[in-house]
Amino acid sequence: MNFKDKLQKAQKTNNSSLIVGLDIDADKIPLHLKKNDNEPLFTFLEQIINATKEHVCAYKPNIAFFEALGFYGLELLEEILAIIPEHIPVILDVKRGDIGNTAKKYAIAAFDELKVDAVTLAPYMGSDSIIPFLEYKDKYSFVLVLTSNKSSQELEMLKTEKGTYLFQETASLVNKWNSEYHNCGAVMGATNPDHFGLVENDLNDSLILVPGIGTQGGKVSDILTKERKNKKNYLFNVSRDIIYASNGEDFATIATEKAIFYKNEINQYL
Amino acid sequence: MNFKDKLQKAQKTNNSSLIVGLDIDADKIPLHLKKNDNEPLFTFLEQIINATKEHVCAYKPNIAFFEALGFYGLELLEEILAIIPEHIPVILDVKRGDIGNTAKKYAIAAFDELKVDAVTLAPYMGSDSIIPFLEYKDKYSFVLVLTSNKSSQELEMLKTEKGTYLFQETASLVNKWNSEYHNCGAVMGATNPDHFGLVENDLNDSLILVPGIGTQGGKVSDILTKERKNKKNYLFNVSRDIIYASNGEDFATIATEKAIFYKNEINQYL
Repeated sequence: MNFKDKLQKAQKTNNSSLIVGLDIDADKIPLHLKKNDNEPLFTFLEQIINATKEHVCAYKPNIAFFEALGFYGLELLEEILAIIPEHIPVILDVKRGDIGNTAKKYAIAAFDELKVDAVTLAPYMGSDSIIPFLEYKDKYSFVLVLTSNKSSQELEMLKTEKGTYLFQETASLVNKWNSEYHNCGAVMGATNPDHFGLVENDLNDSLILVPGIGTQGGKVSDILTKERKNKKNYLFNVSRDIIYASNGEDFATIATEKAIFYKNEINQYL
Repeated sequence: MNFKDKLQKAQKTNNSSLIVGLDIDADKIPLHLKKNDNEPLFTFLEQIINATKEHVCAYKPNIAFFEALGFYGLELLEEILAIIPEHIPVILDVKRGDIGNTAKKYAIAAFDELKVDAVTLAPYMGSDSIIPFLEYKDKYSFVLVLTSNKSSQELEMLKTEKGTYLFQETASLVNKWNSEYHNCGAVMGATNPDHFGLVENDLNDSLILVPGIGTQGGKVSDILTKERKNKKNYLFNVSRDIIYASNGEDFATIATEKAIFYKNEINQYL
């Protein structure tokens, strides 16, 4: 099944456009797990997945958090990918970008080796770095357009000679890639709600992954405003404010509550 | 020892500003190794390192080629890092870029886990994604400014409202980061020699990693022109045209010859 169909099915089954980010961090997991469990990081993520799997449309592990753990991290990532329910798609947040023959290798790593359904990509180097991923017809790629961090202003919001922002040019490339391959979306950070309108036309047929909700300060209500009500192509990611909402023994219960809260919050506007 | 000192020492010892890219590819290594060797990829890289270690100032493995091999790839990378002579610095080509707390994890993966001396980084997301790497005072980061691939035109060469190219703005950020941290350099692809002059002032105190020589068509003589003669901060990477110059039993001998050729070619202009 291709990514979009799998995603739509999961959205329908769980009545949700919420993605939970699985950013594992030994410094943030509950102390009682670290004390009493043989494999606290696995147990933590297993319980987070069990606590949220009825309320999400996808999971998004960011590979940086696993790479920081060395060999064990890659093992852990594979273990986690294996226990995510079959019907819930996985977006691996990798933000890769390299010349053509190298991009092919990154695509193999994500799609053939780790067998995830989708990835995130960095656009700086242009088409050569994106198309090897799009050639996997059943997979999906979310390209960084405007990110949620403060320094997105430095390059992404530079004004071009046409009077556009750079990120609008990236959105127009996403449009071009998606017109040809039908499996290219965008990442638009929730912390810049005023700029969503500027790329809406270009991203109309794309899925839009929106990080930056919760800990980073973004609000669903600022994105899904009146004009954007019922836009079914918006997907909202929350990481820290769900998985690390409590570091007590109740962490899984609180994660369920928080996932339901965000799912309902999003559904209000859809 | 910090990266710059280690590099300078290696440059002096081997009288070389050549970097060899260790981009392992099972499809390209000699057939006789695949037939007769238990660990052909390791043996290949071991022989390439032995064949070139007296003619390089650094090695640059691109992690994509190792990631494409799954678990074994990470094992192979660690094995290779372990046999690179202590006095030759390693630049791990990762082109990472993510928000601050995630960039920190990528920095841990490269500098604490894999213990390499330097990395390459992608600039799209700005300072937040770069500074966690620069905080490792003894390490070094090369930020993509203008890359060697064709589609570098799409974003990197967009004109800003100031009349500059986007990559000049990136170079100016590199200048800013390097002024504060003293360990930030640039990647400038050899296939765009006419544009080197535009960023020279900004990159004057930075190391400039130049890929795109050889298979990609770039020429040392086009970069180190009269005006740039004796610029000691230029480092030239060659991958395919050295390590895959022959796929016969003579591959190591040919790699030595090619490395000497490129080393001399560069030294002509320094």
